[in-house]
Amino acid sequence: MALFKDIHSDLKTVEKEINRYIGAEEPVLTKASGHLLRAGGKRIRPAFALLAGKFYHYDLEKLIPLAVALEVIHMASLVHDDVVDASVTRRGRPTVKSKWGNRISLHTGDFLLGRSLVLISQYEDQRISRVLSRVSVEMCQGEIQQISASFDADQRFRDYLYRIKRKTALLISASCELGAVATGAPEGLTRALTRYGYHLGMAFQITDDILDLVSNEKVLGKPVGGDLRQGIITLPVIYALEHTREKERLRELVTRQDKSAEEVKETIRLIKESGAIDYAFEISQKYLEKAKKELEKLPDVKTKKTFARIAKYIGERQY
Amino acid sequence: MALFKDIHSDLKTVEKEINRYIGAEEPVLTKASGHLLRAGGKRIRPAFALLAGKFYHYDLEKLIPLAVALEVIHMASLVHDDVVDASVTRRGRPTVKSKWGNRISLHTGDFLLGRSLVLISQYEDQRISRVLSRVSVEMCQGEIQQISASFDADQRFRDYLYRIKRKTALLISASCELGAVATGAPEGLTRALTRYGYHLGMAFQITDDILDLVSNEKVLGKPVGGDLRQGIITLPVIYALEHTREKERLRELVTRQDKSAEEVKETIRLIKESGAIDYAFEISQKYLEKAKKELEKLPDVKTKKTFARIAKYIGERQY
Repeated sequence: MALFKDIHSDLKTVEKEINRYIGAEEPVLTKASGHLLRAGGKRIRPAFALLAGKFYHYDLEKLIPLAVALEVIHMASLVHDDVVDASVTRRGRPTVKSKWGNRISLHTGDFLLGRSLVLISQYEDQRISRVLSRVSVEMCQGEIQQISASFDADQRFRDYLYRIKRKTALLISASCELGAVATGAPEGLTRALTRYGYHLGMAFQITDDILDLVSNEKVLGKPVGGDLRQGIITLPVIYALEHTREKERLRELVTRQDKSAEEVKETIRLIKESGAIDYAFEISQKYLEKAKKELEKLPDVKTKKTFARIAKYIGERQY
Repeated sequence: MALFKDIHSDLKTVEKEINRYIGAEEPVLTKASGHLLRAGGKRIRPAFALLAGKFYHYDLEKLIPLAVALEVIHMASLVHDDVVDASVTRRGRPTVKSKWGNRISLHTGDFLLGRSLVLISQYEDQRISRVLSRVSVEMCQGEIQQISASFDADQRFRDYLYRIKRKTALLISASCELGAVATGAPEGLTRALTRYGYHLGMAFQITDDILDLVSNEKVLGKPVGGDLRQGIITLPVIYALEHTREKERLRELVTRQDKSAEEVKETIRLIKESGAIDYAFEISQKYLEKAKKELEKLPDVKTKKTFARIAKYIGERQY
């Protein structure tokens, strides 16, 4: 990603370390973890940690265990999502679950989570373990709420915010926070980076949720409307349920468990016609504004421009 | 348990803390965790931590977070075992999985593991986080190896030891070790307690594996021969496969995936006739001897006798 060019070679080092670190005594575990790793991904969490580290005494050695742990925690949550999801592909490749089955996927996720916590337990500053274990707990709560609230047309804006905070924003926020902590940054600086990451993460997830409705299968690497099929009620859906002229029909479609391809199409059409996409886009812009406001508190290092560009990029992702 | 009478009231405090600590914002999570907690269990891991703490400057306040974390990590592993197991009951009650389904069970396990790591990240001594995150990784590797080796009649004694070390002995060993660490015990004392816990844990699991073959449903809270049905090849089976006079028949039975009740009975009969139970009992006794040897290195506090009695009790569990 061009946005990460300042840390390009350091990210490569992180990638190698991830690869080395997920090896296990059990060959099937190494294979399952490696399969997931090779499926790619943007490595945005390690990137944010390294970039945050640039605001103080940047030291790659000190940042590597954290950067690796962040990506591995993220991977662990993906494997566990796949265990419970129906989807057989992720990022265009077969999921760990579809290749190795539920039992292996479950333990692979546990293994990866455990490995990441071993890594960060090597830091002297307990704050890193503390923040990441807390985030992992919140991530579970987000997943559970998502399950409880699936196909529920009565949820509100704040239920959605609760969920995406836990599913996405907290780990991105922690990436920024701990990148600062690992380099010994002072409290004020760390706080601004934490908040930048949080607001950016919220905008990132809202954008993702919009793309799931308006993008295409080729770009997404999975069919459009995946959230609708799984019953995940995202921001545009919540808005549309209130503002569409066909309230009853949309409600019926949203709460239907086995939607046909035609019904998914119709649902997306009703959502778009309600103005929900523009609305969600505005909310995402508000979060990006808040993220940029935090940047004003940061010292004028080169990375500050990179962080501003990242915020801009998220606001301009193609719909 | 009469063996734990010295710490009876402290264990009650721990029990209350566990109950308080597994509460979550998501009601279903609190219910699922609470269900598991109320299913009971011997709480041997917290008990070992408290008892180990008695050898130095015993301080319940300092031991509580550790004791809670140990039981909660154990609970997390049970929930995840139930996700992948076919059994619908545990300790005579419906499993979390059979009541709430796979998805909730999966995230409940993740939640519990995360919560326990949050708890221990509060200790200043990083060793506690380090040891427990490592143990949780090894527990996964044990589970994975169990899956890979299921219904495999060609495994050896050392495969079995690798597995039970990870499934059981390491967490019991860590309970003793960290009970000492949490009270600031010196290295020599801590090491002896760690080894005591390890050898005792090995004996404990071997005994469990024997009981699965020779006990009865009422005592076990589950049908006899559960391991055989699941394809888990335990020490008596490994011995019997080599020493029975009906090698081919036993091999055929052990590797058969869907054994009838009659076939399970026949398998158990062949195992018993081979002398495998006595052999496994002897191995367990050897571990108990090693555990007792470690006790000799400990100071003469009252708990030393308790530890000796625990070792004796495990050696005498009813067959």
